[in-house]
Amino acid sequence: MSTSWGFYNPVQIHFGLGKVKKLPSFVGNDSSKLIVTTSGHVSRAGVGGLEEQLGLKDYFVFDKVVPNPDIESILRCVDEFSDEKISSVVSIGGGSVIDTGKTVALMLANKNAELRDLLVDASHVKSLPHFAIPTTSGTGAEVTPFATIWDQKNKKKHSLSGVSVYPAMAVLDPKLTQFLPEKETVITALDTISHALESLWNIGRTPITESFACKSLRSSLSALPEVLREPGCIKSRTKLMEASLLAGMAISQTKTAMAHSISYPLTSYFGVPHGLACSFSLSRIITLYATQNKSDHVVPLMIDVQSLLDSLGLQTMLGRYVNQRDLDELKCKMFNPSRAGNFTVKDFEIKDLVDFEL
Amino acid sequence: MSTSWGFYNPVQIHFGLGKVKKLPSFVGNDSSKLIVTTSGHVSRAGVGGLEEQLGLKDYFVFDKVVPNPDIESILRCVDEFSDEKISSVVSIGGGSVIDTGKTVALMLANKNAELRDLLVDASHVKSLPHFAIPTTSGTGAEVTPFATIWDQKNKKKHSLSGVSVYPAMAVLDPKLTQFLPEKETVITALDTISHALESLWNIGRTPITESFACKSLRSSLSALPEVLREPGCIKSRTKLMEASLLAGMAISQTKTAMAHSISYPLTSYFGVPHGLACSFSLSRIITLYATQNKSDHVVPLMIDVQSLLDSLGLQTMLGRYVNQRDLDELKCKMFNPSRAGNFTVKDFEIKDLVDFEL
Repeated sequence: MSTSWGFYNPVQIHFGLGKVKKLPSFVGNDSSKLIVTTSGHVSRAGVGGLEEQLGLKDYFVFDKVVPNPDIESILRCVDEFSDEKISSVVSIGGGSVIDTGKTVALMLANKNAELRDLLVDASHVKSLPHFAIPTTSGTGAEVTPFATIWDQKNKKKHSLSGVSVYPAMAVLDPKLTQFLPEKETVITALDTISHALESLWNIGRTPITESFACKSLRSSLSALPEVLREPGCIKSRTKLMEASLLAGMAISQTKTAMAHSISYPLTSYFGVPHGLACSFSLSRIITLYATQNKSDHVVPLMIDVQSLLDSLGLQTMLGRYVNQRDLDELKCKMFNPSRAGNFTVKDFEIKDLVDFEL
Repeated sequence: MSTSWGFYNPVQIHFGLGKVKKLPSFVGNDSSKLIVTTSGHVSRAGVGGLEEQLGLKDYFVFDKVVPNPDIESILRCVDEFSDEKISSVVSIGGGSVIDTGKTVALMLANKNAELRDLLVDASHVKSLPHFAIPTTSGTGAEVTPFATIWDQKNKKKHSLSGVSVYPAMAVLDPKLTQFLPEKETVITALDTISHALESLWNIGRTPITESFACKSLRSSLSALPEVLREPGCIKSRTKLMEASLLAGMAISQTKTAMAHSISYPLTSYFGVPHGLACSFSLSRIITLYATQNKSDHVVPLMIDVQSLLDSLGLQTMLGRYVNQRDLDELKCKMFNPSRAGNFTVKDFEIKDLVDFEL
């Protein structure tokens, strides 16, 4: 762990059952909001449902967020609303929705900026106030200063980052995740676990990120099996949401590492869901890390997490999207220095982490 | 632990050996700063020492901070500098210095405000940017939105609090604590331990404050005995400073509880140093809490801390300031609802916590 480090996370967090009902008192009801979400969320909420659910007045809705949002979809949204007087952005959905919300809040506050310029450096601009409401427990996007934007045409991933990318507020209401289907529950929980682990074997690990990550892993360890047994259990859903938030707080400082580097080509070339793509290699990485860092006090906790991961059959799940040959062909793209460079262990080969019988 | 909670701490933290040398790049050197400190610090730093140590240009110095700062001393400082164009405040010292810095930064930004009004409600005003540099490991004041101001005449303690009381930045350099004398080292470390414990048995405990507090206690447990054996050991000084910071982050959300409530009259009537006044009762409170919360996973950690506390002879130290009769006479003032009301255990009597053979 570095002896020289920093911490800064200005997101105002409100967590608790029913907290989403408080949104009007947080956002204010005196000017126009842009609600960013998916069509699925609007239709699930029913006619007039968004208003009923969020209690907001005077708002526009952009409900065309796509999974792994790309440059084009974001520019479409900005075009559609740049002539309106939008004072704040409310995003309600999973990580793709919140990342879209972050980017749109930044673009609407800087109408002459080019998105491609912001993707290179967003440190000099301000954002509209952004209120992020996650409906899955996984991405932690509600408390990070990053947004992942894809360039589908060129199979490239961009990262928007900077202090102004932080949402002003994160409103976490476990009730919103209570009926999330099993597959999404597992895949997003895997994202949480990968964030916590990636912040622990990170060159940027600090006493603060370590406390977040360990508490997050302990919550996931107890909550994920409980939620799988009893999906409607609000107590376990609450714990999963806590885990997701804490892991988000951890990576807000460290960023991610090896497992995420491995994941990106799998998502852009084969559409492997993010939570699965960044977690199927975790068990191997735990073994590698534990072998080389025997005295690190977090290793026993990692080994407990490894047992949970091994019980979930991630390689079988991955095999539905890719085969071993696909993995072999992508290997050269799996070591992205900007991400894998955060990994504290240097002495290994990618193939040792991703060669499976798929 | 409450299932409905929040978190907000906007302080930008820079931690590490030599970090204080970076101060000019953080503060900027283009306008007037007010350095708030003690005469002892200035004389220790030597002639021209503050400039050498902090590397700042264009600054004023207020070096008359007193322990447990009172309303009069703060008004004296504000009077002295209110006609200067001060753009930011830099405080370098212990908790009294940082609390003075917080209050002065607020008063200088609101020249028509009455300090007594701000002590009732400081939520509506802004502050000058305040850069806090602790030289002890204990108060955590560098990351909290509170300042304790005493009314010596009326033996009363006031608390300035609100979002604008947070320093803009905390610069923590363990080097500054390397030669702190043993007595101050122990008394401030006791303050750290009391903060971490008080946030754990607090009605406001959350998953985030719990992670901070547990990591803080583990660091104190290993570092305090090490520092007492080898006072110049920078590795242990670093760990003590981490512990202090993390405990400060915890109470920045929960505030303190029972042990602090017990402490205040001891400090105002008998000048018992804060770290001792708020820690001599901790061991008894741990027993009380552990008996009533057997299944809480933090209890084993508390019991380890209790062993450390019991080894330090706190009651003997306290006996140098007060006797049992003094304690008896103050008992009725030791339960202040605004602080003791944060304690999760309700069924006890003050005398069970403070009756000793002094």
